[in-house]
Amino acid sequence: MRKLAVIGLGHVGATVAYTLVTKGLVDELVLIDKNEDKVIAEQYDLLDMLARIDTSTKIKIQDYASLKDADVIITTFGNIRALSDGGNRFGEFDHNVAQVKEVGQKIKESGFNGVIVNVTNPCDVIATLLVRYTGLPHNQVVGTGTFLDTARMQRAVGQALGEDPKNVTGYVLGEHGESQFTAWSTVRVKDHPMAEVAAEKQLDLPDLDNQARRGGWLVFHGKKFTSYAIATCAVKLAQAVLADAHLACPASVFVEKYGCYVGYPAVIGANGVEAVNHVPLTKEEEDKLTSSANFIAEKVASVK
Amino acid sequence: MRKLAVIGLGHVGATVAYTLVTKGLVDELVLIDKNEDKVIAEQYDLLDMLARIDTSTKIKIQDYASLKDADVIITTFGNIRALSDGGNRFGEFDHNVAQVKEVGQKIKESGFNGVIVNVTNPCDVIATLLVRYTGLPHNQVVGTGTFLDTARMQRAVGQALGEDPKNVTGYVLGEHGESQFTAWSTVRVKDHPMAEVAAEKQLDLPDLDNQARRGGWLVFHGKKFTSYAIATCAVKLAQAVLADAHLACPASVFVEKYGCYVGYPAVIGANGVEAVNHVPLTKEEEDKLTSSANFIAEKVASVK
Amino acid sequence: MRKLAVIGLGHVGATVAYTLVTKGLVDELVLIDKNEDKVIAEQYDLLDMLARIDTSTKIKIQDYASLKDADVIITTFGNIRALSDGGNRFGEFDHNVAQVKEVGQKIKESGFNGVIVNVTNPCDVIATLLVRYTGLPHNQVVGTGTFLDTARMQRAVGQALGEDPKNVTGYVLGEHGESQFTAWSTVRVKDHPMAEVAAEKQLDLPDLDNQARRGGWLVFHGKKFTSYAIATCAVKLAQAVLADAHLACPASVFVEKYGCYVGYPAVIGANGVEAVNHVPLTKEEEDKLTSSANFIAEKVASVK
Amino acid sequence: MRKLAVIGLGHVGATVAYTLVTKGLVDELVLIDKNEDKVIAEQYDLLDMLARIDTSTKIKIQDYASLKDADVIITTFGNIRALSDGGNRFGEFDHNVAQVKEVGQKIKESGFNGVIVNVTNPCDVIATLLVRYTGLPHNQVVGTGTFLDTARMQRAVGQALGEDPKNVTGYVLGEHGESQFTAWSTVRVKDHPMAEVAAEKQLDLPDLDNQARRGGWLVFHGKKFTSYAIATCAVKLAQAVLADAHLACPASVFVEKYGCYVGYPAVIGANGVEAVNHVPLTKEEEDKLTSSANFIAEKVASVK
Repeated sequence: MRKLAVIGLGHVGATVAYTLVTKGLVDELVLIDKNEDKVIAEQYDLLDMLARIDTSTKIKIQDYASLKDADVIITTFGNIRALSDGGNRFGEFDHNVAQVKEVGQKIKESGFNGVIVNVTNPCDVIATLLVRYTGLPHNQVVGTGTFLDTARMQRAVGQALGEDPKNVTGYVLGEHGESQFTAWSTVRVKDHPMAEVAAEKQLDLPDLDNQARRGGWLVFHGKKFTSYAIATCAVKLAQAVLADAHLACPASVFVEKYGCYVGYPAVIGANGVEAVNHVPLTKEEEDKLTSSANFIAEKVASVK
Repeated sequence: MRKLAVIGLGHVGATVAYTLVTKGLVDELVLIDKNEDKVIAEQYDLLDMLARIDTSTKIKIQDYASLKDADVIITTFGNIRALSDGGNRFGEFDHNVAQVKEVGQKIKESGFNGVIVNVTNPCDVIATLLVRYTGLPHNQVVGTGTFLDTARMQRAVGQALGEDPKNVTGYVLGEHGESQFTAWSTVRVKDHPMAEVAAEKQLDLPDLDNQARRGGWLVFHGKKFTSYAIATCAVKLAQAVLADAHLACPASVFVEKYGCYVGYPAVIGANGVEAVNHVPLTKEEEDKLTSSANFIAEKVASVK
Repeated sequence: MRKLAVIGLGHVGATVAYTLVTKGLVDELVLIDKNEDKVIAEQYDLLDMLARIDTSTKIKIQDYASLKDADVIITTFGNIRALSDGGNRFGEFDHNVAQVKEVGQKIKESGFNGVIVNVTNPCDVIATLLVRYTGLPHNQVVGTGTFLDTARMQRAVGQALGEDPKNVTGYVLGEHGESQFTAWSTVRVKDHPMAEVAAEKQLDLPDLDNQARRGGWLVFHGKKFTSYAIATCAVKLAQAVLADAHLACPASVFVEKYGCYVGYPAVIGANGVEAVNHVPLTKEEEDKLTSSANFIAEKVASVK
Repeated sequence: MRKLAVIGLGHVGATVAYTLVTKGLVDELVLIDKNEDKVIAEQYDLLDMLARIDTSTKIKIQDYASLKDADVIITTFGNIRALSDGGNRFGEFDHNVAQVKEVGQKIKESGFNGVIVNVTNPCDVIATLLVRYTGLPHNQVVGTGTFLDTARMQRAVGQALGEDPKNVTGYVLGEHGESQFTAWSTVRVKDHPMAEVAAEKQLDLPDLDNQARRGGWLVFHGKKFTSYAIATCAVKLAQAVLADAHLACPASVFVEKYGCYVGYPAVIGANGVEAVNHVPLTKEEEDKLTSSANFIAEKVASVK
């Protein structure tokens, strides 16, 4: 049966929990948060749904020991109030770096041997630290990373062209943060290379790239957090693990070449990261990716 | 095709919108809120999901004119900050009574002729006022009312007995507020009358009744609002309208006998309230219901 | 993760497999049938869907060994061509009694220790024999039994009253066959006792009872088999096991009092039959049930 | 609300109906077949599900008049018994050509002005004839065409590489029949061009192409029809229309250049075929496509 835990019941963690319950995607759900009142409140808000939906999910709280046989943990702890409007994801750095050590050690102590899907920002750094503190191999920790930014790029390009975002493929790569970039050489619209489409439709690619990068802040500006798109990405990665789906997508994965976690094409299945997928990039894109990865690696190195 | 609008993008309205999109339940969704930044933020958080889910939903914002051919409007406006921990739902009374006039008139001007599912508190009063200001017949306005409280009673009884809440049937009746009550004579557990079950298992019925009534405040205490269970109830009523499901459930409906909206057994379908369902009650329950309905009627009468 | 096997890929087994895959309900599916060409055909028809749906399911075939760690087996083997129009479910008796020994022994050899949901007819007899040949305890074998006939009664009563079938509750009890009967004392329509409803609406209860009993033959007459409703019932029981839903419903379960499997109210969860649910019956209903159970017991006794 | 009709209740039509009901995808479903017993049987098999699922669908039968306000009609009539194992889809030609005139005229008489999704074989020919007899514009008639064959190619390539079929993109083009072909220049595996992948992994492309073309016969051999994958494709196209999804996919659409319906990249939305999508092809692929389209055009021309 499917067992999943969410650590951190802020807006994203709670939305992840709600999504899993309302769609009946897991059989047992463990909710953990430092704020006991909050986790109880979320548990009861979910329990109060169960008479109104057709599926059933068991909901446990605050039980690190029960992580032992969980298939997936989604880490969504953080301190959203440390972020300011239009800022960057490193606003949460100090808080989350302190937290990840504690969370990682508790996960390790539980004997957990499944896959962690990390959402906590800065996503790539925290994913790296989760490996450090849990002792899990790299393949068993994946971050949502640019899986979300890529969705925003697909949305932005789709809007510019009057196309459904699913008709836009390709990758935003690098840090889930300011140094990310759209690898336009990988982008295709209904199987036409973006270079051709952009020329024909006179698209402003730097602006579209920026819309992907800044999309989160547009949402943050109006609601003071983001939740639905990021929770959707986290749940989709978790589902890929549960069903061993071999989902090909960008995600924050450990790439040997860069020696750190970074948003990169990968394949997600029961073992977590089943493979990285080395799609061809231009020299300029390679340089941007190296630069973005170096930024992440420096931040990781700064954590003793 | 299925077209639905949400008016009021607070926690509940946003969760309703998310639920509809993530489950692909509607083809077109209209989001309206006084806070334009907030509605844009929610729209983009939803749009950013579309590349990651298998269904499609068109999302329009702030367009009252497009309500004309909507099938359902879910009203979720309010001012949650007016509520204090452990308080009652009349904390929002003044704010929402002022709002409902404006919202109701705009709905009327749009030419809308579908069904309104009202969530805004005090739910029974606002449902009544929506009829007043929209000019719609009573059957086309239904409130979530004690549909939610009943789910909480099912959860509380289920917990007390180690039973799934779906194995508990029956009704919480009256105001979606402090004067509500569980009509224990209607409650059955796996088809056994509650009187027998309670005697055998030595259940404390007043305590369970209180758990239903105060369940919202338990959630409110920890998260400062409630969202998942109430959104689930609103969506289920909307689905019943869209599919003409003839769903038998408690809801806030106009009951001739009491001359106001009150939580009562009903049947929900394409016409909204297809019927009220006069289940037998004890004399004591009848009295409580009359008293609760009178309280609602007085509050309605106080609004000029 | 969720692992389920289907043994017998006739119309029902194939529909069960399709339902599980198209709804993404299981992570791994094992298909077994004596006709290897048929099972390969079904496997490929399902595999050919996977590029067009959002979920993933692994599909193995003919692998009894892999039942070892399956959560649920749905047994749907049979010989539908042995049935004649308007006949009874004992047309398959000889064929299926021979089959169940072989299937049961292979399940036992696999080391399977989950829950069997039996569909194969005569359902109550075969469920009993599955216990005999697998060595599993009674709670780990449940038959669809009158779960389907009850759905047909709900449909027939609903049609007669212009009500949704979900607004009709209660039980068809006894054999999934000609000796079954609707226990009208347990039936309620929107929480009104059937006795009152029938009197008010002048319902012909014997006719409605017969519509439930003969409903399968109406379908059989036109399509030469039945598939959708029965597969839906089997999948719902399997889901109840996977999610430990504690679903209260009629099913073919072992009832101590009768010493055999018979359609009876029960609660289905991770352990299979979590409990039987002794709802009160009239003397006449008790007699009918005893008689129906005796019929089943005799048939079982006839199998050496 | 969503209203859909299925004309032809053979294996595919019935599976389409079941899929729509079990997933709650439409609010009203109209079933039509020349065999009245069969359509009644399917209707009741579906009605008998309704007490066991959480959604509701109204099911009407044999009512051509009610097509007037349907959003989508899926045409699945045919004579599967006219096909022989390993044969070709023209075995049904004479029967279906006679049928399509009658069906098309009745659709026309109903005043239907939605979108037809045609499954009936030979798919491209029948789609063309549906335009002739209904008088609908080309965009309002789309055939499943090579949408299914492409899924089979994705499956075959996925199997050869140990990849999920969703990681394979590209197109099978031309007739939904023997003259179809995989346009390998359009195929990509996890965003790598097939030419590179095939060279590296030493894939036998003609064999894989043949597996796509003959995949239906593999299934036919074992079950004497195909149903799940084709129904899944038809439902996905219907959903694209209902939600105006602008789904980019291969389908049988009218291509000006060839003057007939043929499997070609297109975009499906509320208007049916929103656009054809001229992806670049090699000279050899262009020739194959011309040849395949000419074959279809000749067959169409042979129908007076």
